[in-house]
Amino acid sequence: MKVEPIPGGTITSPKGFLAGATCAGLKVKGGLDLGILYSEAPCVAVGLFTTNRIKAAPVVWCQKHIANKKAQAIVVNAGCANACTGELGLGDAAAMANLAAERLGIAPEDVLVTSTGVIGERLPIGLIAGSIGKVALSPEGGHELAQAIITTDTCTKEAAVVVEGSKFTIGGIAKGSGMVHPNLGTLLCFLATDAAIDARFLENALREAVDLSFNMVTIDGDTSPNDTVLILANGMARNEIIREGTREAEAFGQALTEVCTCLAKRIAGDGEGATKLIEVTVEGALTVADARVAARTIAGSPLLKAAVHGCDPNWGRIVAALGRSGAEIDASRIDLFLNNMCLMAEGLPSSFDRDRAKATMAEDEVPIRVCLNMGDSAATAWGCDLTAEYVAINSEYTT
Amino acid sequence: MKVEPIPGGTITSPKGFLAGATCAGLKVKGGLDLGILYSEAPCVAVGLFTTNRIKAAPVVWCQKHIANKKAQAIVVNAGCANACTGELGLGDAAAMANLAAERLGIAPEDVLVTSTGVIGERLPIGLIAGSIGKVALSPEGGHELAQAIITTDTCTKEAAVVVEGSKFTIGGIAKGSGMVHPNLGTLLCFLATDAAIDARFLENALREAVDLSFNMVTIDGDTSPNDTVLILANGMARNEIIREGTREAEAFGQALTEVCTCLAKRIAGDGEGATKLIEVTVEGALTVADARVAARTIAGSPLLKAAVHGCDPNWGRIVAALGRSGAEIDASRIDLFLNNMCLMAEGLPSSFDRDRAKATMAEDEVPIRVCLNMGDSAATAWGCDLTAEYVAINSEYTT
Repeated sequence: MKVEPIPGGTITSPKGFLAGATCAGLKVKGGLDLGILYSEAPCVAVGLFTTNRIKAAPVVWCQKHIANKKAQAIVVNAGCANACTGELGLGDAAAMANLAAERLGIAPEDVLVTSTGVIGERLPIGLIAGSIGKVALSPEGGHELAQAIITTDTCTKEAAVVVEGSKFTIGGIAKGSGMVHPNLGTLLCFLATDAAIDARFLENALREAVDLSFNMVTIDGDTSPNDTVLILANGMARNEIIREGTREAEAFGQALTEVCTCLAKRIAGDGEGATKLIEVTVEGALTVADARVAARTIAGSPLLKAAVHGCDPNWGRIVAALGRSGAEIDASRIDLFLNNMCLMAEGLPSSFDRDRAKATMAEDEVPIRVCLNMGDSAATAWGCDLTAEYVAINSEYTT
Repeated sequence: MKVEPIPGGTITSPKGFLAGATCAGLKVKGGLDLGILYSEAPCVAVGLFTTNRIKAAPVVWCQKHIANKKAQAIVVNAGCANACTGELGLGDAAAMANLAAERLGIAPEDVLVTSTGVIGERLPIGLIAGSIGKVALSPEGGHELAQAIITTDTCTKEAAVVVEGSKFTIGGIAKGSGMVHPNLGTLLCFLATDAAIDARFLENALREAVDLSFNMVTIDGDTSPNDTVLILANGMARNEIIREGTREAEAFGQALTEVCTCLAKRIAGDGEGATKLIEVTVEGALTVADARVAARTIAGSPLLKAAVHGCDPNWGRIVAALGRSGAEIDASRIDLFLNNMCLMAEGLPSSFDRDRAKATMAEDEVPIRVCLNMGDSAATAWGCDLTAEYVAINSEYTT
C-alpha cells in the first residue's frame, strides 16, 4: 500500500467537503479570522482535546457534542481563544454554534466549535453574528479556512493524501506555532475524509496518528487550554466500511499518520521565530515510552534549541537532556549522530569535523539521531531552534 | 530565634575555613578558574547531587568519598565540566583530588572534587597541576573562590548568616545561570559552618533547605550532569552538638534555608540573559506537592518568561501553565495577583489598570501570587525573564 500525497491538497480534497472564511475583525492584525468546514453528508466524527486542566469554552462544547461521534460542520475563529471566560464563555461558544447552524441549515449539536487566540477575553459574538453570513463555502475553500485559523503562524499547514488502490482521500489543515508541546500543544487540527469508516476504529486510528505526530512536536513546553484535533468522515467515497483489523484499516491508519506527520512537521518548522526544523530520532531504547520521552526531551531542550540556532555542535547538551529525560540509558553505550556524522560513540566524544558539523546545522532541517543500544524501540520528535525572534514575538503579544 | 545576615558574608565567614583561587587557564575568557576551600579541622560533610542519569566524573568521585560523611576540603574548577569523559574522566577527577590533597597535606579521600563548564572535553589536568600551588588560602578567600566557580554568571553569589543567641555561623557560595532547573539545575553550591552537628541531622537539614530553595529555581528547564551541593561542618564554634528535634536544630535549619534561599534567588535573578527575577507563590493548594509543581511550572513557562520580559500582563499564560502543571485545581476558584493587584478572581478576568500592571512588571522583581482556594498548602518558586540575550549566550557557548 503506497500513500501518495496530493500536490496542493487540503482539507476540502476529500469528496463532499466545502469550506470558506471571512474577515470578522477578530484578529488585531486583520485578515481571515472566521471560517466554516461543512460536509454535504452527516459525518462520523471523533476528536482529541487538550490535557490542560483549564479547558476553553469551545473545548467543553466539542467534548459534549462529539460524544455521539456525529457532526456535520466545524466553525472556527482566530483572535480570541474564549478561554478563562466562565459561564459567559460557554454561552458564547453555544451562540457561535447556533449562528453557524442557522447559516448551514443543520442542528447546532452537529456543529463543532473551536477558537484560538488571546486567553481571558470575551468572544466578540456580535462580530461573528455580523460576519458569518459572508462565509462563502466552496470545494476549494480549504485554503481559505487554513488561512483563517492561523495566529502567529507564518504560513498555512495543509496536506492531503490518497492510498494507491483505495477509494478514499484524507485531507487536513492545522495551526500552531507557539504554546506547542506534547499532548496537543496549542494547535488546532481539522481532518476530513470521504471514507466510510467505523467510528470506534476511527477514534483508535486518530489517537495513534496523533501520538506519532502532534504529540511528538515541541516548541516551547507550553500547552494551551484550546488544543483540539477533529476528524470528520462523510462516507462519500462509497467504500466498504473500514473496520479494525482489515487491510483497508491498516492503509487508512498509515495514510492518516502521514497527513498528521506532515502537518506536525510543518508546525515544528514554523515554530514562533524558528529558522529551522530539528528532527530527533532515538533508537535502540528499551521501550517505546523511553524512546518517546527521550526524543521529546532532547527536541525541547532550550539549550539545544539555542545551540542549533547558532550552528554550534555542542552535543553535550543533547546528552544532558537525554540524561534528565527519565529514559533508561547506559551512558557508556550511547552513540550520537548529527546527520549521520558521529559526534559520540559508546558514551565518549568522537573526533569530528567541526566545520562540516556547523555546515550541517546551517541547513533548514537538522537531523539528530541517538542510539541507546539497549533495545529495539524507536521514536522521532520534532522541534525548532530558539531565536531572539521568539522572545520578541512573545514579549508583545497582547500589548 | 532571629536569623541575621552578615553583610559581605561568604563561605569563609564561619571559623576555621580558608579559601583561595587562581587562574589556571581553563576558562576561554580568562579569569579565576581553579579554587580550594579548606577547613583547619576535619569536617562532617554531606552533599546532594544531580538527578541526571549522566553523572560527571567529579560527581561520581564525590558520591563515593562523601559516603562516610567526612571531608576536609573542596577543589573546584570552571571551564571544563569533566562530563561524558568515561574512565579517563574518572581518572582525571581522582588526579585533581590527589593534587589538592598534596597541596593541603591531607588524604585525597578527604578532598571533594567539583567541575563546571563545557561537557565532553577532557580535563586539562596539566594546567591544574601547574597552577594548584598558586592557590593562596586565606580567611577572606571566599570571595575569590566565589569568582572562580562562575561561568556565564554575571556576578558572584555569596551569603552568610548568624542566629541570634547561637554560637555558629553558616556561609555559602553558589554558581549557576543556565541549565538550571529543579532538582539541582546546573549549579554548584558550597556551604560551610563552624557548628558542631550530627551528620544525620545535617543531611536532613540540607535536603529540606535545598527543597525550599535550589529545587524551586528554574531558568531553562535543563538539568546538568554536574549539579552538586556540599556542606562542610567543622565544629570550631564549640557549641554542643546539634541534634534533630532540639531548639538549636530548628535554628540551624532556619539559618541554612535562609542562606540557600538567598543564593537561589540570586541565581534566578542572574539567569542567563535575565533582566529580572520572577517570584511565583502558589497558595491554597490541596498539597505541598501541588503547590510546588504549580509554582515551578508557572515560573518556568517560556511564554510567561517572555511576557514578563516585555512587561506584558498576559495573565492567560499564567493560567495556561497552571492548568498543565498537574496540580489539582478548580478553574472557577482561582485568584491571581501581580504584586497584590488582582488580575483574575474566581477564575474570571478582573478589570485592572493595565498601565500600573506594566509598571509593576518593569521592576527588578516581579511577584506573582496564585490562590487556588482548595486547601492550606503553599510554595514559592523563582525564575527569570526570557530575553534575546539568553539566545545569544547559548547560541555561541562552545564556538
